[in-house]
Amino acid sequence: MSAPGVSNSITVRLTVPAGGSGVSALSACVEEAGGLVTALDVTGSGVDVLQIDLTCAASEGDGAAERVVDALRHLEDVEILKVSDRTFLMHLGGVIETASKHPLRNRDDLSMIYTPGVARICNAIAADPEDARRLTVKRNSVAVVSDGSAVLGLGNIGPYAALPVMEGKAALFKSFAGIDAWPIVLDTQDVDQIVETVAAIAPGFAGINLEDISAPRCFEVERRLRERLDIPVFHDDQHGTAIVVLAALTNALRVVEKELAHVRIVLAGAGAAGTAILKLLLTAGARNVVVCDVDGVVHRGRENDHESLRWIAEHTNPDDVTGTLKEVLPGAEVFIGVSAPNIIDGDDVAAMGEDAIVFALANPTPEIDPAVARRTARVVATGRSDYPNQINNVLAFPGTFRGLLDAQSHDIPAGALVAAAEAIADAVTHGELNANYIIPSVFHPGVHHAVAKAVQDAADPSFTFTEFGDSW
Amino acid sequence: MSAPGVSNSITVRLTVPAGGSGVSALSACVEEAGGLVTALDVTGSGVDVLQIDLTCAASEGDGAAERVVDALRHLEDVEILKVSDRTFLMHLGGVIETASKHPLRNRDDLSMIYTPGVARICNAIAADPEDARRLTVKRNSVAVVSDGSAVLGLGNIGPYAALPVMEGKAALFKSFAGIDAWPIVLDTQDVDQIVETVAAIAPGFAGINLEDISAPRCFEVERRLRERLDIPVFHDDQHGTAIVVLAALTNALRVVEKELAHVRIVLAGAGAAGTAILKLLLTAGARNVVVCDVDGVVHRGRENDHESLRWIAEHTNPDDVTGTLKEVLPGAEVFIGVSAPNIIDGDDVAAMGEDAIVFALANPTPEIDPAVARRTARVVATGRSDYPNQINNVLAFPGTFRGLLDAQSHDIPAGALVAAAEAIADAVTHGELNANYIIPSVFHPGVHHAVAKAVQDAADPSFTFTEFGDSW
Repeated sequence: MSAPGVSNSITVRLTVPAGGSGVSALSACVEEAGGLVTALDVTGSGVDVLQIDLTCAASEGDGAAERVVDALRHLEDVEILKVSDRTFLMHLGGVIETASKHPLRNRDDLSMIYTPGVARICNAIAADPEDARRLTVKRNSVAVVSDGSAVLGLGNIGPYAALPVMEGKAALFKSFAGIDAWPIVLDTQDVDQIVETVAAIAPGFAGINLEDISAPRCFEVERRLRERLDIPVFHDDQHGTAIVVLAALTNALRVVEKELAHVRIVLAGAGAAGTAILKLLLTAGARNVVVCDVDGVVHRGRENDHESLRWIAEHTNPDDVTGTLKEVLPGAEVFIGVSAPNIIDGDDVAAMGEDAIVFALANPTPEIDPAVARRTARVVATGRSDYPNQINNVLAFPGTFRGLLDAQSHDIPAGALVAAAEAIADAVTHGELNANYIIPSVFHPGVHHAVAKAVQDAADPSFTFTEFGDSW
Repeated sequence: MSAPGVSNSITVRLTVPAGGSGVSALSACVEEAGGLVTALDVTGSGVDVLQIDLTCAASEGDGAAERVVDALRHLEDVEILKVSDRTFLMHLGGVIETASKHPLRNRDDLSMIYTPGVARICNAIAADPEDARRLTVKRNSVAVVSDGSAVLGLGNIGPYAALPVMEGKAALFKSFAGIDAWPIVLDTQDVDQIVETVAAIAPGFAGINLEDISAPRCFEVERRLRERLDIPVFHDDQHGTAIVVLAALTNALRVVEKELAHVRIVLAGAGAAGTAILKLLLTAGARNVVVCDVDGVVHRGRENDHESLRWIAEHTNPDDVTGTLKEVLPGAEVFIGVSAPNIIDGDDVAAMGEDAIVFALANPTPEIDPAVARRTARVVATGRSDYPNQINNVLAFPGTFRGLLDAQSHDIPAGALVAAAEAIADAVTHGELNANYIIPSVFHPGVHHAVAKAVQDAADPSFTFTEFGDSW
């Protein structure tokens, strides 16, 4: 159970007797139930009773908020009137909306935005379809596409339940990079149908962000769409994660004064994220990576039933080691986990090389408790927001797409992903860098812009986009 | 060539000598070239020269703006610095955008809008998928879908050139009815693929607005999607047009004091719009409609090669007349054209019954010049904005969808379309009604709300949507 957090915040409207110690008992009661009072507003007062809105942060996890409410309900003389949940209230009716860029006040506005004026815009694009990138929202829009098959750590929950994540992502695209993204959740999990559908709707978008599609289907979806479309296709679970891991590892290696080319890296997890991390590490110069999946070390001698595993076997494990994860970890300089909860322990980390780097990124429960890992490892990172060094995709995808759109890129060169990682790493200055600060905050004032610039330069160094720049 | 309009407005930055009559010559020059000066701003002044931004409304049609610029260029001592086009400037980068409903300022915001808080929203929807209509943008969102096969009067110009229309429509949805619509233009014109694609992306939307898909494919696309989806499917070229025509005809008949059930209506055009108008007229009580297409009167005795023509033959023309449009028009009380330019003349209208009603809706050039029709007809309407009585779909689709979304409707009952038409007709009060005002302006302050209310009641009279109402 994690600490109380605002994302699990509730507001309880209740009444207590006006005299006596009823009010002061509330905070103690909430804390005993595992919550924390973050605000107490008296919203009504009479001769005998006070009406209070009590805002509490409950712990994450099933039933934590209910336990707080139950505890309050059992206090003497307290009557619960209403319970509301801040996160649910924020998501009521969705977290994104559309807006018209121009007011529609009169006939003149209408005749330019819509008919008859719009016909001249249509004619211009019919004469030169590339003008759609100048004269329509295509220039700045990204489809956030999911089939709901691997949503967060929740598994295959389908398109409806995936929609809040895609919406939240669209809100982030706008807030961090000025991009107009729209969620597209699919009523199919068939690879052919996903490819056909995304290809069919592609003309209105300048980029496709695939999201939370399970491996190994996601590899084929991405590969086929990349071949087919003339706009960038990015799978955030792969490329976004890989960018941020490479950025964090770059700075972690700076802390311990080692070189990427000279360290042995053990990577646990050969799914979407693991495979993409591997490829980006190799592109960036890593030479000795050993990948483990649920069957142990991936090597050329074992039966690898999927194309991506065969690719891994051919491109990693230069010493051709075999065995289990725990057997290959001793002496390794770097452990990166994108796999399952609690698969290694403190002894495993203690057996790693000096100044070990441990990225335990399984969500919501890491491969090892970061507090335990920190006993012997020099640098520890997780995917969680309540520890230092959070590996968070939000650092990567907004700026990366901003750069790709500004370059009007037709694809995503591998060099652009490396450039994005370097930009994130370099957002932490030499004076700031230490074992507990290898990666900037997603609210770092310059990081998204730096990523965009680096990606734009890498995607098309010859392109200068001066005609009309977005301000964001 | 129509009159100068703001939708073809240009701003010319030029210099003229500071002394003399250079400035006053500008307006005359523009008017001679067929334009109209709508603004003259001195944007710079020196000892010898003035810099002027001259805004001109040029006529619609090819080359009108160029003729104005050419004429100015030939004026003595005038130097053209720059020409910009207001409509193109409005469409630069598109006319719609997305917005996050909540600010994303800090970790707390992020943890509620996105991870980890969003996982609780996902779990709630996974437990009950109907909650997607409460907790996501689905509740308020419509896909504006086109394959670009029949865009405005421009024909099959494809998805890229269709995009500005779909975007403009999305802007109208927001401005007139608070609906979050997103344009989806398709890289296919195959019926099966259109149906599969729209069905695949449907989970994220609460309604589908099909737009500018050519007949007869649009009938099958609409029918199959209606059968398959649990959200309303509306084809604006059919249903939107039919609603507004029925509304206008209702009021035109009030002007001439006739009953829908007792008039003979000649309908020219058996495409998407014509067929939908016919069906709605019959639903509303019309009994004697004669439909003509390019081959003349549709009747049971002729060879009708498409299912929709056979349907028309069976449900119209009770007297089983044959011949050409011009042969059946004499004596008719109502002519409705959704066909081709200039197919009837003043003599044809003069031969119609007393107090004839003529709706000449072909765009951009009507079936007959409305000024000619008015010589003998009592009520004339067109699709054009520069004559009285414009039949404009914008009156129908925003309110209709608002009503369907507020009722959380799963389909579109025919009664809802009739109710929408009645609401539009009734927006013109008894005191306002006359032959030149049978239909309200799209900027009528109450019309969209009245349509929404009428449609919501008709779609589901038992449904009261009080939990959270949008203010629009």
